[in-house]
Amino acid sequence: MDVRLFDGGRRVDGISPLDRGLAYGDGLFETMRAHHGDVPWWDRHWSRLRQGATVLGLALPDEARARAELAGLLDGRDGVTKLLVTRGAGERGYAPGPHEPFWMLSVSPTPPARSPITLRWCATRLALQPALAGLKHCNRLEQVLARAEWTPGETADEGLMLDAEGAVVSAVAGNLFVLRGDAWLTPSLDRCGVRGVMRGWALTALDATEARLATADVETADALFVCNAVRGILEVARLGDRTWTPHPQVAGLRARLAADHPAFASLTEMP
Amino acid sequence: MDVRLFDGGRRVDGISPLDRGLAYGDGLFETMRAHHGDVPWWDRHWSRLRQGATVLGLALPDEARARAELAGLLDGRDGVTKLLVTRGAGERGYAPGPHEPFWMLSVSPTPPARSPITLRWCATRLALQPALAGLKHCNRLEQVLARAEWTPGETADEGLMLDAEGAVVSAVAGNLFVLRGDAWLTPSLDRCGVRGVMRGWALTALDATEARLATADVETADALFVCNAVRGILEVARLGDRTWTPHPQVAGLRARLAADHPAFASLTEMP
Repeated sequence: MDVRLFDGGRRVDGISPLDRGLAYGDGLFETMRAHHGDVPWWDRHWSRLRQGATVLGLALPDEARARAELAGLLDGRDGVTKLLVTRGAGERGYAPGPHEPFWMLSVSPTPPARSPITLRWCATRLALQPALAGLKHCNRLEQVLARAEWTPGETADEGLMLDAEGAVVSAVAGNLFVLRGDAWLTPSLDRCGVRGVMRGWALTALDATEARLATADVETADALFVCNAVRGILEVARLGDRTWTPHPQVAGLRARLAADHPAFASLTEMP
Repeated sequence: MDVRLFDGGRRVDGISPLDRGLAYGDGLFETMRAHHGDVPWWDRHWSRLRQGATVLGLALPDEARARAELAGLLDGRDGVTKLLVTRGAGERGYAPGPHEPFWMLSVSPTPPARSPITLRWCATRLALQPALAGLKHCNRLEQVLARAEWTPGETADEGLMLDAEGAVVSAVAGNLFVLRGDAWLTPSLDRCGVRGVMRGWALTALDATEARLATADVETADALFVCNAVRGILEVARLGDRTWTPHPQVAGLRARLAADHPAFASLTEMP
Protein backbone atom coordinates (compact mmCIF):
# COMPACT_ATOMS: atom_id res chain seq x y z
CA MET A 1 0.00 0.00 0.00
CA ASP A 2 1.22 3.45 -0.91
CA VAL A 3 0.85 6.02 1.81
CA ARG A 4 1.71 9.63 2.62
CA LEU A 5 1.55 11.03 6.17
CA PHE A 6 1.25 14.66 7.28
CA ASP A 7 1.38 16.63 10.50
CA GLY A 8 -0.53 19.80 9.62
CA GLY A 9 1.21 21.12 6.49
CA ARG A 10 4.37 19.07 6.95
CA ARG A 11 4.99 15.65 5.43
CA VAL A 12 6.21 13.22 8.09
CA ASP A 13 7.64 9.71 8.18
CA GLY A 14 5.64 8.21 11.00
CA ILE A 15 2.60 8.29 13.25
CA SER A 16 2.95 9.85 16.70
CA PRO A 17 2.37 7.45 19.64
CA LEU A 18 0.34 10.35 21.08
CA ASP A 19 -2.02 10.54 18.09
CA ARG A 20 -5.59 10.96 19.28
CA GLY A 21 -6.88 8.85 16.42
CA LEU A 22 -4.99 5.92 17.87
CA ALA A 23 -5.93 6.76 21.47
CA TYR A 24 -9.64 7.55 21.09
CA GLY A 25 -10.67 7.10 17.45
CA ASP A 26 -10.73 10.90 17.43
CA GLY A 27 -10.85 11.36 13.69
CA LEU A 28 -12.74 11.01 10.42
CA PHE A 29 -12.13 9.17 7.17
CA GLU A 30 -13.23 9.03 3.56
CA THR A 31 -12.81 6.06 1.25
CA MET A 32 -12.97 7.09 -2.39
CA ARG A 33 -12.74 5.53 -5.84
CA ALA A 34 -9.98 6.94 -8.01
CA HIS A 35 -10.08 6.80 -11.78
CA HIS A 36 -7.03 7.56 -13.92
CA GLY A 37 -5.39 9.44 -11.07
CA ASP A 38 -8.41 11.54 -10.19
CA VAL A 39 -11.19 11.23 -7.60
CA PRO A 40 -14.35 12.11 -9.54
CA TRP A 41 -16.46 12.56 -6.40
CA TRP A 42 -13.86 14.51 -4.43
CA ASP A 43 -16.29 17.36 -3.74
CA ARG A 44 -18.93 15.04 -2.28
CA HIS A 45 -16.36 13.39 -0.01
CA TRP A 46 -14.79 16.65 1.10
CA SER A 47 -18.21 18.06 1.89
CA ARG A 48 -19.04 15.17 4.22
CA LEU A 49 -15.59 15.39 5.80
CA ARG A 50 -16.15 19.10 6.46
CA GLN A 51 -19.52 18.40 8.10
CA GLY A 52 -17.88 15.85 10.38
CA ALA A 53 -15.02 18.20 11.21
CA THR A 54 -17.52 20.87 12.22
CA VAL A 55 -19.31 18.51 14.59
CA LEU A 56 -16.08 17.23 16.15
CA GLY A 57 -14.34 20.62 16.15
CA LEU A 58 -11.51 19.08 14.15
CA ALA A 59 -9.10 21.08 11.99
CA LEU A 60 -8.82 19.87 8.38
CA PRO A 61 -5.80 20.09 6.10
CA ASP A 62 -5.88 22.59 3.26
CA GLU A 63 -8.21 21.07 0.67
CA ALA A 64 -6.17 22.00 -2.42
CA ARG A 65 -3.02 20.61 -0.79
CA ALA A 66 -4.76 17.36 0.14
CA ARG A 67 -6.09 16.90 -3.37
CA ALA A 68 -2.72 17.67 -4.95
CA GLU A 69 -0.92 15.23 -2.65
CA LEU A 70 -3.47 12.56 -3.52
CA ALA A 71 -2.97 13.17 -7.24
CA GLY A 72 0.77 12.82 -6.69
CA LEU A 73 0.31 9.56 -4.83
CA LEU A 74 -2.08 8.16 -7.44
CA ASP A 75 0.18 9.12 -10.34
CA GLY A 76 -2.51 8.39 -12.91
CA ARG A 77 -3.68 5.09 -11.41
CA ASP A 78 -7.10 3.67 -10.61
CA GLY A 79 -7.65 2.37 -7.08
CA VAL A 80 -9.31 2.84 -3.74
CA THR A 81 -8.02 5.86 -1.87
CA LYS A 82 -8.45 6.65 1.78
CA LEU A 83 -8.07 9.98 3.54
CA LEU A 84 -7.85 9.74 7.32
CA VAL A 85 -7.80 12.93 9.42
CA THR A 86 -7.26 12.83 13.18
CA ARG A 87 -7.00 15.54 15.82
CA GLY A 88 -3.26 14.95 15.88
CA ALA A 89 -0.91 14.34 18.78
CA GLY A 90 -2.22 15.38 22.16
CA GLU A 91 -1.48 15.17 25.83
CA ARG A 92 -3.02 12.45 27.97
CA GLY A 93 -6.74 13.04 28.63
CA TYR A 94 -9.83 13.66 26.58
CA ALA A 95 -9.68 17.48 26.39
CA PRO A 96 -9.13 18.37 22.73
CA GLY A 97 -6.40 20.97 22.43
CA PRO A 98 -5.73 23.26 19.46
CA HIS A 99 -3.91 20.60 17.49
CA GLU A 100 -2.60 20.52 13.97
CA PRO A 101 -4.42 17.63 12.29
CA PHE A 102 -2.60 14.44 11.42
CA TRP A 103 -3.68 13.20 8.00
CA MET A 104 -2.88 10.22 5.89
CA LEU A 105 -3.50 9.39 2.25
CA SER A 106 -3.32 5.83 1.01
CA VAL A 107 -4.07 3.89 -2.16
CA SER A 108 -4.95 0.22 -2.46
CA PRO A 109 -6.11 -1.93 -5.39
CA THR A 110 -9.74 -1.81 -6.50
CA PRO A 111 -11.68 -4.78 -5.11
CA PRO A 112 -13.31 -7.12 -7.64
CA ALA A 113 -16.83 -6.07 -8.64
CA ARG A 114 -19.38 -8.44 -7.20
CA SER A 115 -23.11 -8.10 -7.78
CA PRO A 116 -25.62 -9.48 -7.01
CA ILE A 117 -24.75 -10.19 -3.39
CA THR A 118 -26.00 -12.27 -0.45
CA LEU A 119 -26.93 -10.59 2.84
CA ARG A 120 -27.33 -11.79 6.42
CA TRP A 121 -28.79 -10.15 9.50
CA CYS A 122 -26.27 -9.10 12.16
CA ALA A 123 -27.01 -9.48 15.86
CA THR A 124 -24.83 -6.49 16.86
CA ARG A 125 -27.02 -3.42 17.22
CA LEU A 126 -26.13 0.19 16.47
CA ALA A 127 -26.48 2.43 19.54
CA LEU A 128 -28.59 5.57 19.16
CA GLN A 129 -26.22 8.54 19.26
CA PRO A 130 -27.65 11.58 17.46
CA ALA A 131 -24.52 13.63 18.23
CA LEU A 132 -22.44 11.43 15.93
CA ALA A 133 -25.11 10.11 13.54
CA GLY A 134 -24.26 10.33 9.86
CA LEU A 135 -20.54 10.99 10.34
CA LYS A 136 -17.81 8.74 9.00
CA HIS A 137 -15.82 8.95 12.22
CA CYS A 138 -13.22 6.51 13.50
CA ASN A 139 -15.26 4.95 16.33
CA ARG A 140 -16.17 1.78 14.46
CA LEU A 141 -16.19 -1.00 17.05
CA GLU A 142 -19.86 -1.73 16.34
CA GLN A 143 -19.00 -2.47 12.70
CA VAL A 144 -16.02 -4.57 13.78
CA LEU A 145 -18.20 -6.64 16.13
CA ALA A 146 -20.86 -7.04 13.44
CA ARG A 147 -18.33 -8.16 10.83
CA ALA A 148 -16.88 -10.62 13.35
CA GLU A 149 -20.23 -12.45 13.49
CA TRP A 150 -19.56 -14.35 10.24
CA THR A 151 -18.86 -17.97 11.08
CA PRO A 152 -15.84 -19.60 9.40
CA GLY A 153 -16.76 -20.44 5.84
CA GLU A 154 -19.89 -18.30 5.82
CA THR A 155 -20.17 -16.70 2.41
CA ALA A 156 -22.55 -13.77 2.97
CA ASP A 157 -21.16 -10.69 1.26
CA GLU A 158 -22.64 -8.16 3.65
CA GLY A 159 -24.73 -7.93 6.80
CA LEU A 160 -27.63 -5.70 7.73
CA MET A 161 -27.62 -3.94 11.08
CA LEU A 162 -30.51 -2.78 13.24
CA ASP A 163 -30.45 0.06 15.73
CA ALA A 164 -31.05 -0.44 19.44
CA GLU A 165 -34.82 -0.18 18.88
CA GLY A 166 -34.90 -2.70 16.04
CA ALA A 167 -35.16 -0.37 13.05
CA VAL A 168 -33.05 -1.30 10.02
CA VAL A 169 -30.13 1.12 9.56
CA SER A 170 -27.64 -0.06 6.96
CA ALA A 171 -25.21 -2.73 5.89
CA VAL A 172 -21.96 -3.01 7.87
CA ALA A 173 -20.06 -1.08 5.19
CA GLY A 174 -22.74 0.40 2.99
CA ASN A 175 -26.19 1.93 2.87
CA LEU A 176 -29.41 0.12 2.00
CA PHE A 177 -32.14 1.00 -0.50
CA VAL A 178 -35.45 -0.83 -0.65
CA LEU A 179 -38.05 -0.82 -3.43
CA ARG A 180 -41.62 -1.21 -2.20
CA GLY A 181 -44.26 -0.87 -4.93
CA ASP A 182 -43.13 2.15 -6.91
CA ALA A 183 -41.30 3.87 -4.00
CA TRP A 184 -37.60 3.66 -3.19
CA LEU A 185 -36.89 3.95 0.54
CA THR A 186 -33.69 4.19 2.56
CA PRO A 187 -33.34 4.25 6.36
CA SER A 188 -33.25 7.61 8.14
CA LEU A 189 -29.84 8.23 9.69
CA ASP A 190 -30.66 10.87 12.29
CA ARG A 191 -29.82 8.60 15.24
CA CYS A 192 -26.99 6.37 13.99
CA GLY A 193 -25.36 5.13 10.80
CA VAL A 194 -23.12 6.72 8.18
CA ARG A 195 -24.50 9.13 5.59
CA GLY A 196 -22.75 7.55 2.61
CA VAL A 197 -21.63 9.55 -0.40
CA MET A 198 -23.13 6.95 -2.77
CA ARG A 199 -26.32 7.05 -0.69
CA GLY A 200 -26.52 10.80 -1.33
CA TRP A 201 -26.17 10.25 -5.06
CA ALA A 202 -28.77 7.44 -5.10
CA LEU A 203 -31.25 9.41 -2.98
CA THR A 204 -31.33 12.08 -5.66
CA ALA A 205 -31.14 9.72 -8.62
CA LEU A 206 -34.08 7.65 -7.38
CA ASP A 207 -36.00 10.47 -5.71
CA ALA A 208 -36.00 8.11 -2.74
CA THR A 209 -37.54 8.77 0.68
CA GLU A 210 -35.84 8.45 4.07
CA ALA A 211 -37.95 6.29 6.37
CA ARG A 212 -37.91 4.17 9.51
CA LEU A 213 -37.84 0.59 8.18
CA ALA A 214 -38.63 -2.62 10.01
CA THR A 215 -37.05 -5.96 9.14
CA ALA A 216 -40.32 -7.07 7.51
CA ASP A 217 -40.22 -4.01 5.21
CA VAL A 218 -36.90 -5.27 3.92
CA GLU A 219 -37.81 -8.95 3.69
CA THR A 220 -40.98 -8.23 1.70
CA ALA A 221 -39.41 -5.61 -0.59
CA ASP A 222 -39.60 -5.88 -4.38
CA ALA A 223 -35.88 -5.19 -4.78
CA LEU A 224 -32.91 -4.27 -2.55
CA PHE A 225 -29.46 -2.90 -3.06
CA VAL A 226 -26.50 -1.99 -0.87
CA CYS A 227 -24.23 0.83 -1.98
CA ASN A 228 -21.01 2.57 -1.08
CA ALA A 229 -18.52 4.83 -2.81
CA VAL A 230 -16.00 2.03 -3.32
CA ARG A 231 -18.15 -0.81 -4.64
CA GLY A 232 -20.97 1.16 -6.20
CA ILE A 233 -24.42 -0.42 -6.34
CA LEU A 234 -24.67 -4.04 -5.25
CA GLU A 235 -28.00 -5.66 -6.02
CA VAL A 236 -29.18 -8.13 -3.41
CA ALA A 237 -30.06 -11.66 -4.59
CA ARG A 238 -30.57 -13.28 -1.20
CA LEU A 239 -31.27 -12.42 2.44
CA GLY A 240 -31.75 -15.49 4.62
CA ASP A 241 -34.41 -17.59 2.86
CA ARG A 242 -35.68 -14.81 0.63
CA THR A 243 -34.31 -14.49 -2.89
CA TRP A 244 -34.78 -11.81 -5.51
CA THR A 245 -34.29 -11.91 -9.26
CA PRO A 246 -32.52 -8.97 -10.95
CA HIS A 247 -34.75 -5.92 -11.12
CA PRO A 248 -34.72 -3.61 -14.14
CA GLN A 249 -34.77 -0.50 -11.94
CA VAL A 250 -31.51 -1.54 -10.29
CA ALA A 251 -29.94 -2.28 -13.67
CA GLY A 252 -31.08 1.17 -14.80
CA LEU A 253 -29.55 2.83 -11.76
CA ARG A 254 -26.25 1.04 -12.31
CA ALA A 255 -26.21 2.34 -15.86
CA ARG A 256 -26.82 5.88 -14.60
CA LEU A 257 -23.99 5.50 -12.10
CA ALA A 258 -21.66 4.29 -14.84
CA ALA A 259 -22.50 7.43 -16.80
CA ASP A 260 -21.99 9.72 -13.77
CA HIS A 261 -18.78 8.22 -12.36
CA PRO A 262 -16.22 6.74 -14.76
CA ALA A 263 -14.78 4.30 -12.19
CA PHE A 264 -18.10 2.44 -12.21
CA ALA A 265 -18.32 2.21 -15.99
CA SER A 266 -16.20 -0.93 -16.05
CA LEU A 267 -18.21 -2.92 -13.51
CA THR A 268 -18.66 -6.50 -14.59
CA GLU A 269 -21.59 -8.52 -13.35
CA MET A 270 -20.79 -11.73 -11.55
CA PRO A 271 -24.04 -13.65 -11.51
CA MET B 1 7.09 10.85 27.11
CA ASP B 2 8.87 7.53 27.16
CA VAL B 3 7.34 4.88 24.98
CA ARG B 4 7.91 1.32 23.75
CA LEU B 5 6.05 -0.16 20.76
CA PHE B 6 5.50 -3.82 19.90
CA ASP B 7 4.10 -5.87 17.02
CA GLY B 8 3.16 -9.15 18.70
CA GLY B 9 6.35 -10.26 20.45
CA ARG B 10 8.66 -8.00 18.46
CA ARG B 11 9.73 -4.52 19.52
CA VAL B 12 9.22 -2.04 16.67
CA ASP B 13 10.12 1.56 15.95
CA GLY B 14 6.84 2.86 14.57
CA ILE B 15 3.09 2.51 14.22
CA SER B 16 1.73 0.91 11.05
CA PRO B 17 -0.45 3.18 8.88
CA LEU B 18 -2.72 0.13 8.63
CA ASP B 19 -3.16 -0.19 12.39
CA ARG B 20 -6.80 -0.90 13.21
CA GLY B 21 -6.59 1.17 16.37
CA LEU B 22 -5.93 4.20 14.21
CA ALA B 23 -8.54 3.23 11.60
CA TYR B 24 -11.43 2.15 13.82
CA GLY B 25 -10.49 2.63 17.48
CA ASP B 26 -10.24 -1.19 17.44
CA GLY B 27 -8.38 -1.57 20.72
CA LEU B 28 -8.32 -1.30 24.50
CA PHE B 29 -6.27 0.65 27.00
CA GLU B 30 -5.36 0.78 30.67
CA THR B 31 -4.04 3.83 32.48
CA MET B 32 -2.23 2.86 35.66
CA ARG B 33 -0.37 4.49 38.54
CA ALA B 34 3.20 3.35 38.94
CA HIS B 35 5.06 3.55 42.23
CA HIS B 36 8.82 3.05 42.47
CA GLY B 37 8.88 1.26 39.13
CA ASP B 38 6.02 -1.09 39.90
CA VAL B 39 2.28 -1.03 39.11
CA PRO B 40 0.67 -2.11 42.39
CA TRP B 41 -2.73 -2.78 40.78
CA TRP B 42 -1.40 -4.57 37.71
CA ASP B 43 -3.61 -7.61 38.33
CA ARG B 44 -6.79 -5.51 38.47
CA HIS B 45 -5.87 -3.71 35.23
CA TRP B 46 -4.86 -6.87 33.41
CA SER B 47 -8.09 -8.56 34.47
CA ARG B 48 -10.20 -5.78 32.96
CA LEU B 49 -8.05 -5.77 29.83
CA ARG B 50 -8.60 -9.52 29.45
CA GLN B 51 -12.37 -9.11 29.82
CA GLY B 52 -12.36 -6.49 27.07
CA ALA B 53 -10.16 -8.64 24.84
CA THR B 54 -12.61 -11.52 25.21
CA VAL B 55 -15.54 -9.34 24.14
CA LEU B 56 -13.68 -7.86 21.17
CA GLY B 57 -11.94 -11.12 20.21
CA LEU B 58 -8.61 -9.33 20.49
CA ALA B 59 -5.29 -11.10 21.07
CA LEU B 60 -3.27 -9.79 24.02
CA PRO B 61 0.49 -9.74 24.42
CA ASP B 62 2.06 -12.17 26.85
CA GLU B 63 1.31 -10.79 30.30
CA ALA B 64 4.71 -11.49 31.87
CA ARG B 65 6.45 -9.91 28.87
CA ALA B 66 4.25 -6.82 29.04
CA ARG B 67 4.89 -6.39 32.75
CA ALA B 68 8.64 -6.88 32.35
CA GLU B 69 8.80 -4.35 29.51
CA LEU B 70 6.87 -1.87 31.63
CA ALA B 71 9.26 -2.36 34.53
CA GLY B 72 12.16 -1.74 32.15
CA LEU B 73 10.55 1.44 30.86
CA LEU B 74 9.75 2.70 34.36
CA ASP B 75 13.25 1.98 35.66
CA GLY B 76 12.22 2.56 39.25
CA ARG B 77 10.20 5.73 38.65
CA ASP B 78 6.77 6.87 39.75
CA GLY B 79 4.39 8.06 37.04
CA VAL B 80 1.28 7.40 35.02
CA THR B 81 1.65 4.43 32.69
CA LYS B 82 -0.55 3.54 29.77
CA LEU B 83 -0.87 0.22 28.01
CA LEU B 84 -2.65 0.39 24.65
CA VAL B 85 -3.45 -2.83 22.76
CA THR B 86 -4.95 -2.76 19.27
CA ARG B 87 -5.89 -5.50 16.82
CA GLY B 88 -2.76 -4.62 14.86
CA ALA B 89 -2.28 -3.91 11.17
CA GLY B 90 -5.08 -5.13 8.93
CA GLU B 91 -6.36 -4.96 5.40
CA ARG B 92 -8.99 -2.39 4.41
CA GLY B 93 -12.45 -3.26 5.76
CA TYR B 94 -13.99 -4.07 9.11
CA ALA B 95 -13.49 -7.84 9.10
CA PRO B 96 -11.07 -8.63 11.92
CA GLY B 97 -8.39 -11.03 10.72
CA PRO B 98 -6.12 -13.19 12.89
CA HIS B 99 -3.73 -10.36 13.68
CA GLU B 100 -0.81 -10.11 16.04
CA PRO B 101 -1.70 -7.32 18.47
CA PHE B 102 0.06 -3.99 18.34
CA TRP B 103 0.81 -2.76 21.85
CA MET B 104 2.37 0.32 23.30
CA LEU B 105 3.64 1.17 26.76
CA SER B 106 4.18 4.77 27.80
CA VAL B 107 5.02 6.71 30.95
CA SER B 108 4.15 10.30 31.72
CA PRO B 109 4.50 12.42 34.88
CA THR B 110 1.99 12.04 37.70
CA PRO B 111 -0.61 14.84 37.55
CA PRO B 112 -0.88 17.10 40.61
CA ALA B 113 -3.28 15.80 43.24
CA ARG B 114 -6.39 17.96 43.38
CA SER B 115 -9.25 17.37 45.79
CA PRO B 116 -11.87 18.54 46.48
CA ILE B 117 -13.05 19.25 42.94
CA THR B 118 -15.78 21.16 41.11
CA LEU B 119 -18.14 19.34 38.74
CA ARG B 120 -20.43 20.43 35.91
CA TRP B 121 -23.13 18.65 33.98
CA CYS B 122 -22.28 17.74 30.38
CA ALA B 123 -24.83 17.96 27.59
CA THR B 124 -23.27 15.14 25.56
CA ARG B 125 -25.11 11.91 26.32
CA LEU B 126 -23.69 8.40 26.43
CA ALA B 127 -25.41 6.08 23.95
CA LEU B 128 -26.78 2.80 25.27
CA GLN B 129 -24.57 0.01 23.91
CA PRO B 130 -24.66 -3.09 26.13
CA ALA B 131 -22.24 -4.93 23.82
CA LEU B 132 -19.42 -2.53 24.76
CA ALA B 133 -20.57 -1.36 28.21
CA GLY B 134 -17.94 -1.43 30.92
CA LEU B 135 -14.95 -1.85 28.59
CA LYS B 136 -12.09 0.62 28.37
CA HIS B 137 -12.04 0.50 24.58
CA CYS B 138 -10.66 3.10 22.20
CA ASN B 139 -13.98 4.44 20.84
CA ARG B 140 -14.03 7.57 22.98
CA LEU B 141 -15.58 10.30 20.84
CA GLU B 142 -18.40 10.78 23.35
CA GLN B 143 -15.85 11.64 26.03
CA VAL B 144 -14.01 13.95 23.62
CA LEU B 145 -17.24 15.78 22.78
CA ALA B 146 -18.16 16.06 26.47
CA ARG B 147 -14.74 17.41 27.43
CA ALA B 148 -14.97 19.93 24.56
CA GLU B 149 -18.04 21.50 26.20
CA TRP B 150 -15.92 23.49 28.67
CA THR B 151 -16.02 27.15 27.66
CA PRO B 152 -12.71 29.01 27.58
CA GLY B 153 -11.72 29.85 31.13
CA GLU B 154 -14.24 27.49 32.70
CA THR B 155 -12.59 25.94 35.74
CA ALA B 156 -14.71 22.85 36.43
CA ASP B 157 -12.42 19.91 37.10
CA GLU B 158 -14.71 17.23 35.78
CA GLY B 159 -18.11 16.77 34.15
CA LEU B 160 -20.90 14.33 34.82
CA MET B 161 -22.49 12.51 31.90
CA LEU B 162 -25.98 11.09 31.51
CA ASP B 163 -27.02 8.23 29.30
CA ALA B 164 -29.47 8.59 26.44
CA GLU B 165 -32.37 8.05 28.84
CA GLY B 166 -31.18 10.62 31.37
CA ALA B 167 -29.67 8.34 34.02
CA VAL B 168 -26.38 9.50 35.54
CA VAL B 169 -23.47 7.32 34.39
CA SER B 170 -20.09 8.72 35.35
CA ALA B 171 -17.65 11.59 35.08
CA VAL B 172 -15.93 12.07 31.72
CA ALA B 173 -12.78 10.34 32.99
CA GLY B 174 -13.83 8.72 36.23
CA ASN B 175 -16.60 6.93 38.07
CA LEU B 176 -19.03 8.50 40.50
CA PHE B 177 -20.01 7.47 44.04
CA VAL B 178 -22.89 9.07 45.90
CA LEU B 179 -23.68 8.91 49.63
CA ARG B 180 -27.40 9.00 50.42
CA GLY B 181 -28.19 8.52 54.11
CA ASP B 182 -25.99 5.63 55.14
CA ALA B 183 -25.82 4.01 51.70
CA TRP B 184 -23.09 4.47 49.11
CA LEU B 185 -24.39 4.17 45.53
CA THR B 186 -22.68 4.13 42.15
CA PRO B 187 -24.32 4.02 38.71
CA SER B 188 -24.92 0.64 37.09
CA LEU B 189 -22.75 0.25 33.98
CA ASP B 190 -24.61 -2.50 32.13
CA ARG B 191 -25.58 -0.24 29.20
CA CYS B 192 -22.68 2.22 28.87
CA GLY B 193 -19.74 3.65 30.79
CA VAL B 194 -16.36 2.27 31.84
CA ARG B 195 -16.02 -0.19 34.72
CA GLY B 196 -13.12 1.58 36.41
CA VAL B 197 -10.48 -0.27 38.37
CA MET B 198 -10.73 2.26 41.21
CA ARG B 199 -14.50 1.88 41.09
CA GLY B 200 -14.06 -1.85 41.64
CA TRP B 201 -11.88 -1.21 44.69
CA ALA B 202 -14.29 1.40 46.11
CA LEU B 203 -17.36 -0.79 45.53
CA THR B 204 -15.85 -3.41 47.81
CA ALA B 205 -14.33 -0.99 50.31
CA LEU B 206 -17.64 0.84 50.81
CA ASP B 207 -19.93 -2.15 50.29
CA ALA B 208 -21.63 0.14 47.79
CA THR B 209 -24.65 -0.68 45.64
CA GLU B 210 -24.97 -0.32 41.87
CA ALA B 211 -28.11 1.62 41.05
CA ARG B 212 -29.86 3.67 38.37
CA LEU B 213 -29.36 7.28 39.55
CA ALA B 214 -31.24 10.39 38.44
CA THR B 215 -29.68 13.86 38.44
CA ALA B 216 -31.71 14.75 41.56
CA ASP B 217 -30.23 11.76 43.41
CA VAL B 218 -26.81 13.28 42.82
CA GLU B 219 -27.75 16.88 43.57
CA THR B 220 -29.38 15.97 46.89
CA ALA B 221 -26.67 13.53 47.99
CA ASP B 222 -24.90 13.85 51.34
CA ALA B 223 -21.46 13.46 49.74
CA LEU B 224 -20.00 12.72 46.31
CA PHE B 225 -16.69 11.60 44.93
CA VAL B 226 -15.23 10.88 41.52
CA CYS B 227 -12.52 8.26 41.23
CA ASN B 228 -10.10 6.74 38.77
CA ALA B 229 -6.91 4.70 38.93
CA VAL B 230 -4.72 7.69 38.12
CA ARG B 231 -6.06 10.39 40.43
CA GLY B 232 -7.54 8.25 43.17
CA ILE B 233 -10.53 9.58 45.09
CA LEU B 234 -11.57 13.15 44.37
CA GLU B 235 -14.12 14.54 46.78
CA VAL B 236 -16.67 16.86 45.19
CA ALA B 237 -17.07 20.33 46.74
CA ARG B 238 -19.36 21.85 44.14
CA LEU B 239 -21.78 20.86 41.36
CA GLY B 240 -23.56 23.84 39.81
CA ASP B 241 -25.08 25.76 42.72
CA ARG B 242 -24.81 22.94 45.22
CA THR B 243 -21.81 22.80 47.53
CA TRP B 244 -20.64 20.14 49.94
CA THR B 245 -18.30 20.36 52.93
CA PRO B 246 -15.70 17.60 53.38
CA HIS B 247 -17.29 14.40 54.60
CA PRO B 248 -15.53 12.15 57.13
CA GLN B 249 -16.48 9.00 55.21
CA VAL B 250 -14.62 10.24 52.15
CA ALA B 251 -11.60 11.15 54.24
CA GLY B 252 -11.74 7.68 55.72
CA LEU B 253 -11.87 6.06 52.31
CA ARG B 254 -8.91 8.11 51.12
CA ALA B 255 -6.95 6.88 54.12
CA ARG B 256 -7.85 3.28 53.28
CA LEU B 257 -6.75 3.82 49.69
CA ALA B 258 -3.44 5.25 50.84
CA ALA B 259 -2.92 2.11 52.89
CA ASP B 260 -3.88 -0.22 50.00
CA HIS B 261 -1.97 1.49 47.17
CA PRO B 262 1.34 3.21 47.93
CA ALA B 263 1.06 5.69 45.05
CA PHE B 264 -1.90 7.31 46.80
CA ALA B 265 -0.14 7.61 50.18
CA SER B 266 1.46 10.89 49.16
CA LEU B 267 -1.69 12.68 48.01
CA THR B 268 -1.79 16.22 49.24
CA GLU B 269 -5.06 18.04 49.71
CA MET B 270 -5.49 21.28 47.80
CA PRO B 271 -8.40 23.00 49.50
